[in-house]
Amino acid sequence: MLTTELQHKIDFKTKPLGALGHLEHLAHRIGMVQNTTSPQLSNPHLVVFAADHGIATAGVSAYPQEVTYQMVMNFLGGGAAINVFCRQHNIEIKIVDAGVNFDFPEGLELIDKKIRKSSRNILEEPAMTSEEYQKALQNGNSVVAEIAETGCNIIGFGEMGIGNTSASSLMMSKLFDIPIASCIGRGTGLNDDQLQNKISILSAAIEQYPGVKTPDEIARTFGGLEIVQMMGAMEEAFRQNMLIMVDGFIATIAVATAWKKNPEILKNCIFCHVSDENAHLQLLDLLGQKALLNLNLRLGEGTGCALAYPLIKSAVNFLNEMSSFEDAHVSNKE
Amino acid sequence: MLTTELQHKIDFKTKPLGALGHLEHLAHRIGMVQNTTSPQLSNPHLVVFAADHGIATAGVSAYPQEVTYQMVMNFLGGGAAINVFCRQHNIEIKIVDAGVNFDFPEGLELIDKKIRKSSRNILEEPAMTSEEYQKALQNGNSVVAEIAETGCNIIGFGEMGIGNTSASSLMMSKLFDIPIASCIGRGTGLNDDQLQNKISILSAAIEQYPGVKTPDEIARTFGGLEIVQMMGAMEEAFRQNMLIMVDGFIATIAVATAWKKNPEILKNCIFCHVSDENAHLQLLDLLGQKALLNLNLRLGEGTGCALAYPLIKSAVNFLNEMSSFEDAHVSNKE
Repeated sequence: MLTTELQHKIDFKTKPLGALGHLEHLAHRIGMVQNTTSPQLSNPHLVVFAADHGIATAGVSAYPQEVTYQMVMNFLGGGAAINVFCRQHNIEIKIVDAGVNFDFPEGLELIDKKIRKSSRNILEEPAMTSEEYQKALQNGNSVVAEIAETGCNIIGFGEMGIGNTSASSLMMSKLFDIPIASCIGRGTGLNDDQLQNKISILSAAIEQYPGVKTPDEIARTFGGLEIVQMMGAMEEAFRQNMLIMVDGFIATIAVATAWKKNPEILKNCIFCHVSDENAHLQLLDLLGQKALLNLNLRLGEGTGCALAYPLIKSAVNFLNEMSSFEDAHVSNKE
Repeated sequence: MLTTELQHKIDFKTKPLGALGHLEHLAHRIGMVQNTTSPQLSNPHLVVFAADHGIATAGVSAYPQEVTYQMVMNFLGGGAAINVFCRQHNIEIKIVDAGVNFDFPEGLELIDKKIRKSSRNILEEPAMTSEEYQKALQNGNSVVAEIAETGCNIIGFGEMGIGNTSASSLMMSKLFDIPIASCIGRGTGLNDDQLQNKISILSAAIEQYPGVKTPDEIARTFGGLEIVQMMGAMEEAFRQNMLIMVDGFIATIAVATAWKKNPEILKNCIFCHVSDENAHLQLLDLLGQKALLNLNLRLGEGTGCALAYPLIKSAVNFLNEMSSFEDAHVSNKE
């Protein structure tokens, strides 16, 4: 049995039983996913999906909508936090336009998967038509299918989209039947008045769609184009048996939605950090997951994945490189 | 004012205010230590101090004493967890014999700072004579002074010594005037009976030395040769204005003792992880510190330092490499 072989290999490394804590669980999990006692991480990638949100015009964010496209340009120029951390750890970064409200010039290193310029305003109509929703999922699939051809077996996902904590809070409330107010946080930094405003707007939004129940309908109605493409990307990564690095609140909502459709996906997911955004910890608890890092990050972009990547690599490395008690002639417990 | 300049540089990076959480505090702290808004980490080192403990023969550990020298051989062979993690992050590793109960063969890459073969048994006499104690501190100083000449400005410390959680618990109890029972944990993995035995033995030990009060007297009476050399090493690292990466329970006891002598040392310390060893979290609270990682590690060797190092590097990298709102033409908060 592989599970026993893996545990034996971990337990007979030159360390007290269990002394590497979470890294031991991680090493075991990765071995199980890769079906080997000598797993390898190859060609790690991080994909950032960017899109705008119709609801952003209602004033749910501390930043103006144009920040979405400006940050895409910043990613392409290599100056954002996610660029810095991916460079540090040799993680290949890809930027996807899933629906940014901007006409980008030609010739950029940008993967064009734009469905439309910004999702529809959910205060008026569902965020996507059924056709747009299906196309968004497929676009996410195809981004990952292409990356899989490079031999990548570990992939993280980030997002950029002014307004996307609002979309995520609405999805969380519907997916888990939790009052919307306890799913809402300060996003990129709302003050108390702005937070109250966000709660009022989202409470009004959710009341408009009482009949929406299934994960797909929830994602289509309340989601963002970047969230749905990320969901499609995660589903494809699972089909390709990749390890999936999950970032913060928004990425966890994408996983949670995919999980409602197929609980198996969690086997491949590594929850990289618990965000400072209110509700993320609650969401991790609902999924029965613990995150590797707790650094009060609330940036998105996939930064939690890139920062946690060296720990994932350490789990694989100790499993492959540490001596056993026998090899090193070290006495085991008396 | 440097503190203001640093905060300004951090706040105008292309991210919401404070969104990089603990990494922002870390970047600010490192800038203050190095007196610059563009800090650099150079030539990182990790030093493992190893020594045996007279009290180990009383049965306070789950492992036999010979494991100390066997693990030193494992470090030198590159097969221990700390070797794996240092290789991963290009951290130079040095192994110091501070007082191992073994005659090592000639020609090893081992720094010989042996004071004696094992500390004295504190159930019978203080762990060190005054002369041995002073020599141990000096030995720690000299190890770091030599490393400083290579241009190293960040250094972590690990330990190996069967019985050293016992020495640390005694030191903690005396340093902070806390009942010994609440300073004791399972070390490398005691069962319930063995834990009760450890509590009885250490309670008896502490009652023998009611007059011991000063940090130096506490360290001399209850400490281990590796703990005291580490303390001397930390004091020298502070004099050299290095960043000091602090590992788990035992390393934190060394810092706490140095801090009682000179509170300034904490400015240079980065607490890398909170250990699964009972009492470490309490000790961090007493020092008013939060650790970067919480992975339920309880291995020692400096593994928490090596695993946290990439996060420290990320803090420096974002400060140096991220674009500002102005550079990247990104709109700031409305």
